[in-house]
Amino acid sequence: MTLALPFRRIVILGLGLIGGSIGLALREAGFAGERVGLDPDPDTCDRALASGALTRVESDLAGALAGADLVILATPLSAMPDLLAALASLLEPGAVLTDCASAKGGPVAWARALLADRMVRFVPGHPIAGSAASGFQAASAGLFRGRGVVLCPLPETDPLALEAVAGLWRACGAEVTRLDPDRHDRVFAAVSHLPQLLAFALVDLLARREDAEQLFAQAGPGFRSVTRIAASSPALWRDICLTNRAALLAELRDYRGRLGQLEALLEASDGPGLQAAFGRATEALRRYPGRD
Amino acid sequence: MTLALPFRRIVILGLGLIGGSIGLALREAGFAGERVGLDPDPDTCDRALASGALTRVESDLAGALAGADLVILATPLSAMPDLLAALASLLEPGAVLTDCASAKGGPVAWARALLADRMVRFVPGHPIAGSAASGFQAASAGLFRGRGVVLCPLPETDPLALEAVAGLWRACGAEVTRLDPDRHDRVFAAVSHLPQLLAFALVDLLARREDAEQLFAQAGPGFRSVTRIAASSPALWRDICLTNRAALLAELRDYRGRLGQLEALLEASDGPGLQAAFGRATEALRRYPGRD
Repeated sequence: MTLALPFRRIVILGLGLIGGSIGLALREAGFAGERVGLDPDPDTCDRALASGALTRVESDLAGALAGADLVILATPLSAMPDLLAALASLLEPGAVLTDCASAKGGPVAWARALLADRMVRFVPGHPIAGSAASGFQAASAGLFRGRGVVLCPLPETDPLALEAVAGLWRACGAEVTRLDPDRHDRVFAAVSHLPQLLAFALVDLLARREDAEQLFAQAGPGFRSVTRIAASSPALWRDICLTNRAALLAELRDYRGRLGQLEALLEASDGPGLQAAFGRATEALRRYPGRD
Repeated sequence: MTLALPFRRIVILGLGLIGGSIGLALREAGFAGERVGLDPDPDTCDRALASGALTRVESDLAGALAGADLVILATPLSAMPDLLAALASLLEPGAVLTDCASAKGGPVAWARALLADRMVRFVPGHPIAGSAASGFQAASAGLFRGRGVVLCPLPETDPLALEAVAGLWRACGAEVTRLDPDRHDRVFAAVSHLPQLLAFALVDLLARREDAEQLFAQAGPGFRSVTRIAASSPALWRDICLTNRAALLAELRDYRGRLGQLEALLEASDGPGLQAAFGRATEALRRYPGRD
């Protein structure tokens, strides 16, 4: 089966969990064109090529981009400004560019400053497929299956470029939705970046105690579920937090306030008040059961 | 295969997730004696009997306790004071009593006040097998397999009663550890009750927003993992929070302080500081991988 996408040569910059999984998913979907990859780690390049995720690896950005009609940025956020500066002169005319970052305000601002007339072909994107695992060794062809991908088109975004990137993600099994970049960042501050910070804070709090070993030994399945994502890459999350700083700070303040209200209910031994708050949460999870 | 336990008639008071699973696990383990159950809900009693979790149901406490040599309290915390008062006169001489509550200070204080000379045969216990699911319909013979059970013997606890209850739990597949009740409550305030409150608070915060539907629609697997336990029974958790109020308040204050420190790091755009805090969490999860 051959997959019909308007691209003949897709270049993936960054071969971690996301970039590697895109290569594997495209192969499984029957994409007939070239899948070229580039990563600073030569071992990762070798593994990605051997796995069949790629048809070719390149060690040089100019060589990778020559003849490419789709470029997928799947690097850490902190690598994006330099890469976007280089892409401004290296992208083929008409090539489509997309990214996979978990915060969109930063990438959009960097792209606007650096890409000049290539900006119309930039489609900001965010696959909701993060995991505590990272790196190419965690990549899989099914990573995006049934998961959401948010695309954040700008007023100037070429509709054909947008539709082509949406088609790429659907070919990987994802469900594509659209959000304005600013709205995206506020939504994901609430449902992703704040929960991540809460999990890091909880594990860090207990890890610093003298009795940490006993605490973790007694922790049950509930604790494991709440803190699973705190095994994620600290550098990746530092970048996301700093990039989405304003929206995340607003969520963090709101959450600390909410926690303060629960503390007051507990101080007052207010059973009905506690039960009402817990009940609203239970009811919300019933009303919005989610994908997982 | 017949299971050797020093009991011929075990009575389970409360046939929810925990009580129902004990009955099913004892049957699977080959316990040859009677398994008598009692629950205020007649449908639950019928289902428990039909499933084979019990050999008999009783509608009357005195009838259930006659001839019983082990009584397992698996009721909500709020039902325990009245039950303990009744048990003081109804327990057979020499019968062993244990409970399954997630907080131990309350049950120990109530038992001390109510059980008089029966106190020596009371073995406070806590199976770490909670789940977002509840009720007999969620019970299973394997619920305790590979899970921890904490027993909290008191200075006056009969060592034979303690060992018999430990044997019961091992027969259900659990790993038994011991903690002083006060220490138990401080440990579980940190690793269970605080995480539960954090999950309730997060879901409640988002559920009260006007855009709740969109927020929950975009929430990915990380959010689902962090908030899964917020589907637990609000009444059960109200009871646990109120019973373990002092230790939980101390944890909540500590956590809010830690969150305030992260907020300050984010306000200052302190990348190294954030990465160090996240890294301590990642490292702790690696060092203490846990059972799940």
